[in-house]
This record gives sequence, structure tokens and C-alpha cells, in this order.
Amino acid sequence: MHNRQTLVRKFQQMLPSDCVIFREEELIPYECDGLSAYRRVPLIVLLPYTADQVEAILKFCHQQQIPVVARGSGTGLSGGALPHEQGVLLSLARLNKILEIDTENMQARVQPGVRNLAVSEAVKPHGLYYAPDPSSQIACSIGGNVAENAGGVHCLKYGLTLHNLLRLTVITIDGEKITLGAGGLDAPGLDLLTLMTGSEGMLGVVVEVLVKLLPIPTCRQVVLAAFEDVEAAANAVAEIIAQGILPAGLEMMDNLSIRASEDFVHAGYPTDAEAILLCEVDGIDDEVAEEILRVREILLKSGAVQVRTAADEQERIRFWAGRKNAFPAVGRLSPDYYCMDGTIPRSQLGKVLKMISEMSDRYGLRCANVFHAGDGNLHPLILYDANIPGELEKAESFGGEILELCVAVGGSITGEHGVGLEKIDQMCAQFTDQELETFHAVKAVFDPHNLLNPGKAIPTLNRCAEFGAMHVHAGKLRFPELERF
Amino acid sequence: MHNRQTLVRKFQQMLPSDCVIFREEELIPYECDGLSAYRRVPLIVLLPYTADQVEAILKFCHQQQIPVVARGSGTGLSGGALPHEQGVLLSLARLNKILEIDTENMQARVQPGVRNLAVSEAVKPHGLYYAPDPSSQIACSIGGNVAENAGGVHCLKYGLTLHNLLRLTVITIDGEKITLGAGGLDAPGLDLLTLMTGSEGMLGVVVEVLVKLLPIPTCRQVVLAAFEDVEAAANAVAEIIAQGILPAGLEMMDNLSIRASEDFVHAGYPTDAEAILLCEVDGIDDEVAEEILRVREILLKSGAVQVRTAADEQERIRFWAGRKNAFPAVGRLSPDYYCMDGTIPRSQLGKVLKMISEMSDRYGLRCANVFHAGDGNLHPLILYDANIPGELEKAESFGGEILELCVAVGGSITGEHGVGLEKIDQMCAQFTDQELETFHAVKAVFDPHNLLNPGKAIPTLNRCAEFGAMHVHAGKLRFPELERF
Repeated sequence: MHNRQTLVRKFQQMLPSDCVIFREEELIPYECDGLSAYRRVPLIVLLPYTADQVEAILKFCHQQQIPVVARGSGTGLSGGALPHEQGVLLSLARLNKILEIDTENMQARVQPGVRNLAVSEAVKPHGLYYAPDPSSQIACSIGGNVAENAGGVHCLKYGLTLHNLLRLTVITIDGEKITLGAGGLDAPGLDLLTLMTGSEGMLGVVVEVLVKLLPIPTCRQVVLAAFEDVEAAANAVAEIIAQGILPAGLEMMDNLSIRASEDFVHAGYPTDAEAILLCEVDGIDDEVAEEILRVREILLKSGAVQVRTAADEQERIRFWAGRKNAFPAVGRLSPDYYCMDGTIPRSQLGKVLKMISEMSDRYGLRCANVFHAGDGNLHPLILYDANIPGELEKAESFGGEILELCVAVGGSITGEHGVGLEKIDQMCAQFTDQELETFHAVKAVFDPHNLLNPGKAIPTLNRCAEFGAMHVHAGKLRFPELERF
Repeated sequence: MHNRQTLVRKFQQMLPSDCVIFREEELIPYECDGLSAYRRVPLIVLLPYTADQVEAILKFCHQQQIPVVARGSGTGLSGGALPHEQGVLLSLARLNKILEIDTENMQARVQPGVRNLAVSEAVKPHGLYYAPDPSSQIACSIGGNVAENAGGVHCLKYGLTLHNLLRLTVITIDGEKITLGAGGLDAPGLDLLTLMTGSEGMLGVVVEVLVKLLPIPTCRQVVLAAFEDVEAAANAVAEIIAQGILPAGLEMMDNLSIRASEDFVHAGYPTDAEAILLCEVDGIDDEVAEEILRVREILLKSGAVQVRTAADEQERIRFWAGRKNAFPAVGRLSPDYYCMDGTIPRSQLGKVLKMISEMSDRYGLRCANVFHAGDGNLHPLILYDANIPGELEKAESFGGEILELCVAVGGSITGEHGVGLEKIDQMCAQFTDQELETFHAVKAVFDPHNLLNPGKAIPTLNRCAEFGAMHVHAGKLRFPELERF
């Protein structure tokens, strides 16, 4: 047990006084991230200005064996930045400078607290942008994006965060600064750059990020297609990709989401459709025009009952506004909702959506589906009312079952939101004991005393034994109904 | 010291007798890989047929503390598959089955001994192919590609091996089978899939690989541009990328390579040019036609004195034949050559080529440059004659100096060939002691007794101290002439 007063005094000697937050009422805003179902007040919040201060903090915490949870903007959806009650919450919000824009090599060197969208805004005058665009891009930070390997609507074409990184500067728990990756194509040695990416604050604290930039496409166009059944829409997704078209975005919404969105933002969606697809193509003008024609043709052949190309830039933005506001729109239908995140092979889309709809009947909870169809990255939104006793628990076990189904059909329990605390039990379904032990051993290389974000992302084998999950790697045991298909 | 006879008997009990190779004359073919300057005869060669046999071999070697070097097709250029004199050379050549072709999800599940090109040939009837295409693709194996994170002419657009992998099944040195990655977009937990990729046989033995497939582009076209100076060609490369064009290949050759190639394959290259660029665009017909026009325009604006679009498929193939045969063509100019592999930021191309040419004068050795310009991945070919005493050593130190220059300008000592034994000293220039210690510690998680490919890829700190390299991270110390630019 660490004493708050003693720590406050120590940190006040080490850092400017406004870097140390310790009054109960000032700690409250840090008690959760975007997964607000879990809350914990940290012992202390530190808000350093510089990488050197981060180094000093980590050295001290290492020496004193104090747990450290790093936090970007706190927009994460899996509880990765949930504080430790006996530990330091280390906010990187003040390391928010864009250090260098290198237009020639199309790179930007930024601090971790820089907002995702701020990078694109800063390089826009040079005709460049930073591709990964999670829904939270106005608020979320690059450091948080690295920790969670964030994706976004455009990652089908442009990749996840890890595909858009060149180099990281990281401070380890013992206060050493290491550089991972290189300014070039590939780096020799073990690929610790990608190991660090998506490691959810468990291996080190990122203090500098070199990101790739891309030229802004000169033209973007979107097609909206309506389907009378979800499976036909799912097949159209597979067909577009199979024809060698790599859309900048390929998103699907089911009827519940369509109606919720349409009520909310009036995007012009056909509310009687069972599913819609939004397919965006970007590039140079003629190329886009040509690909849009091909996309339309494939959609019609795949059974779309309506196919509309946005008439102008305004309509294009309106089509996307419906998709981008789908979460808050669905939120209006119900006091609470639980946003899931899992991936499946594209060919399993139709089957999995059908099984989710059966689970929905069984649990008596509605479920809206809005997702990155091209990537096979599902985001089922489970609607519930936390004021009805037992509904949160029902929603959680419905969600858990969806994730285990994702694993059973060959996918994974997270596409882009991370494991955090939320999905730590489902990790037992995804991995064998041996695999989890390897994770722990790699973690121990960087953080042998388990001080960095303890209790997140990788379950202990004990926890898995308690969870008692059937291991579903090979496994259709939990889902005998998979055999029906 | 292990006794060959005892081991042979043990392995003969464990494996079918044709799996155990131990006669001196049969061991000789395995004494080196593509880096034939280094040769070592292993104690024994094992050629298992199944993953279970691999498991049994590794368990036994672990128990007996016998070093194991895994080998694919032996085409590697950095000595990664150079045997250990006191160890087992484990050839995966007989694990050569394509286990499953999943056209719907565009994936193929293959064993590690399958040749790179064989994957594309097998899926061609479905209109698909496997994108990474190292020059050795006729012979090299997928397992070797994973071990070295192989690239190729098309990796500018389609990425390295790691970008085209979904899942690996790996057997660890203690004989446990682990699965890394997932069938979907991203996998939770630490990213051990990319950690394993490019780890040069140091962490485990890959026994199954799930690769991504892509639709074969319906159209491909190439432009050849000639320049009167190398720097203008380098600038044209940067300009094409800056304009938002992502060529399928963007290759550069200097005058020495052009002349050598032209003599050898008569590709129709302008032999008086100081540099040529080959820029290939792929996609659908109209799109390709449009992009080719834009590429031509940029090349002309960048000072190309001649710009020729291949008139037909035959000419396109001829243009590429020159590039693809450049290494053997240069080989005809000299009894021996030493092929380097380093990366630099694209903006440094002109400067680095100039400095290489100055080094060439200083060492009195010719150097031909043929490389993946779009990626900033250099392949200088240093010409020497091993029969002249001291020339090999001169070539090696010329090569070492090139690699250190790559690091000094912000690049790295390998683009796609790996570190192996060849570049182990240059690792001391690329990484700090702390970073190397992290590599060793991660290695120790998988292989605590250092049995898997010992002595490769990651130098000991002692070795670095002996090498005495100036650490050139920040560093222009070794290259004061960089200040001139």
C-alpha cells in the first residue's frame, strides 16, 4: 500500500506543481475511459510536460514498485486506461507537440498526446493526411492509437495504426529510452515496433511517434446500396473485394441501425431495407469514376434493390454522417448500449449475423449491427437498460457469446478496440495456456514486476481456469449450431 | 560436444531413415545458403516429412541442448541458414503441401516448404495470386520468406511478407505448438505474429502459414524513363509518390547496371543514360491508362530525357527481364560481387548514391546500383575478385560502410535480406546496448538456452564492443561529409 501524501510530496519535488493531481474531486474525471461501466479512482494523476519527466516518473515508480497506467485522451472502449487504485495514472495529454513535418519523406514526428485529427489538419496545407481514422479521431490521441492499434473506416485500404507507423521512442519501466523501428521500409532485429503497437500500455510508455503520411486523394465517391436481406449484402461485400476492388471504406448497417440513424440525422437511407452497404472509392478522378461503375454493377448483380451514387459532395458527406452517427443514434433507442468489437473471416458474415440475431431473441435484448464489413470487423451494439436489475449482466454475457462465436468461426475477439479489462475473459477462449504464458513471458522482458497497466489485456491462467471457458480454437463445442450451416 | 554417431542412431529411431543425412558428402550441399562466402558443415541434416516429426526433433534437441538451424530453400543472402558445426540443420523442404485454398476469404494455408511461386501458380485458376515476390521466388520457400520477412519488386504497393500473413503455426524449441495471429483483421494480445516474422529462425520453427491472396490485376503497364543524372531520377521517384501514385513497382538502375543488363538480355535499355527508372502500374484498364499518362508527365517534368511506355506485353516483359537479370548480368563483369541491402528515406537517395560513388573511388572497387527506389531499398553490388588477396575484405568493409551510412541518414541495415551472419556487426551501429539487450531478452522468452540459430541476427554486447563501431544513431561522426549536403 502506497501512501498518497508521501507520493504527492515526492512527485511535487520531481515535477512542476501543476503536474501532480491528487485532490479527490480532481481525480474523479480520470476514473474511467470510454468504457464507463468500470470506474476506479487512482492514487494520483501525473500530467508531465516532457519525455524527461516521464522518464523520471517511471524510474521512481519502478524503484518504489508503484503501478502505472498510461492514458492518452481516454476515449478507449475496452477499459485499457482504467486507473489502478494503488497506482499512478500517467496522462500524456501535455506531450502534445507536432515536432516535425517532413513533406519530402511524407512523415511526421509527433508526441503521443497529439490528437489524431490534429496530425491531418497540420499537414493538410501540404496536401497530405494521416490515414487511420477511428470514430473518435477528433479527440483520441496518437499515443492511444498506438497502444490500441486503432483502425477506422478506412483501414480496409490504408491499414491499421501499425501499418502507418515508422518509428517509436519508448521509455521502459526502468526509465530507459529505446527506439523501435526505423525511418525506412523495414528494420532489422526483432520487430519490436509492431510488438509495442497494440500492447495496451503493458510494455512501455511511448513518448514519440514517427507516422507515415499519405497524399490526400483528389477524388472520393460513395455508393449506397440497399438489400432485402443481410446475407445478400454480406455476399456483395465479398464479391467487391474478390473483383480486385479495394474500396477506401466498405461499411454495412442493419435495419435497426438504419432506422435509428435515419431518425437522427436524415441521411436519406431507405428505412425499409434489411441492410445497406456504403462503398467509398478514392483516388484520381477517372479512376474513381471507373471503379464506381464497376461497384454499382457488382452490387446490382448481388441483389441490391437500390443503388445510389452520391450526387454531389454534400450528399456524400450526408451518406457518411448517417454511418458516423450510428452509435449515438442507436443510443437514442435505449438507455444504455454495449458496443462490441470482433473480427471474422468475410465469408462468415451472413452466418454470424444470423446467429447474433438468434442470440438476440434468446437474451431478449435488441442488437444493432453497424460495422466495417470489408474487414470482417463487427461492431454489434447490444441495447439494454442498466436500471433493470440483471440487464447489464445479460448484455455482458450476450457480448461474451458473440466474441466467442467470432473465435469459433476463425476470427478474433477484437478488431480495433483492444482487450483492456472488458475482454480479458474472452482471451481465455482465444488463446491456449501456452500462448498466454508466452504473452506473459514477453511482457516480463519489458516489465518483470508487472507495474505497467497490471491486470489488463492478458489474463492469468488462474483467471482463465475460473472463467472456465471451453477452449474454442478447434471448437464448435459451445456452438453446436455452427454445424447446421 | 555431441557425438555424430550417437545422434544419428537416436534420430534414426525417431524418424524414417531417409530423414537423417549424416554422410560427409551428403552434408556438403547444406554447408551454405545464398551467402556462399561463409560455409560450415553441420553435424547432421534432418529432413522431416511432418510437423509432428519437427516437434519430436525440437523436443529432443531441447532436452539434449543441441543447436538447431532451420532452413527453407537456402536462397537467403545473409547467411541466416548457415549451419552450426555442432548442431542439427533442420530442412523444412519436405513440408511442401498446399493444405487449403480458401477462395471466398482469399487465403491459402500452406506448409513452410512450399515455394513462393508455387502458391501463386496453385491459385491462378481462381484469378488470385500471392503478392510478395522476391527475386528468388521460383526457388525460395514461404517458411524462409517468413523468417526473413521477404519483400520483392512489388512490395512498395503490396507490402512485405508480414503484410501478407494472417496466421502462423509455430513449434517452439521445447516442442510446444503455438498459433500466432488469427484469420481476421487483427489479433488481440501481443502481436507475436509480426514478432515471429523476420525473426530469422531465432524464436521458433514455422510449420504452417496462412497467407493472404489478392486478385490478379487485369492490366499491367510499365514506363521506362532515362535520366542524364542520378539525382534527377531520384527526385522523380519522390515526385511520383508525392503525387499520390502508388506504383506496383518503381525500380532504379545506374549506368553500370544498365550496360551490364543490356549486354546480357538486350532489354532495349538506353546504355548512355546515367540512370533509368522502371515504373509499373497495375489495376483495371482505364485506371492504368490514366495513371500511366500521369507518370509520364511527372517523369518528363522531372528531367527524364526519354520516356517509353512498353508498346505491348512482350516489351513489358523485356523491360522487366533487364531488371530481373541485373544481378547475374553484373556478375559477368567481375569474378565476384557482394550484394548489399539497406534502406534509406527516399529523400536521401541522391545524396547516398553520390557518397557510394565516392566510396567506390576510395576503395578502388566498382559498385553497380540496382534497387527498389520507391521503397528507398538499396541493393549496391560491389564488384571484386576473391582471387586478389585482400579484395574480399575491402569489399566487406566497403559494404559495411554503406550500411552504416544508411543508418546515419535515418534508414536501416537491411530492407529485405535479413541480418543473418553477414550484417551482425552493423547491428551494433543500428542499435544501442539497451535495445540489443531487449532483443536478447525477448529471444530468451522463446529460447532461453539459445539453441535456435545461435550466433545470428543479434550480436552480443561483447561482439559489439570488439567491433568498436561508433554508434551512429545521432551520428554523423563517421560521416562528416554528410554535413556538406
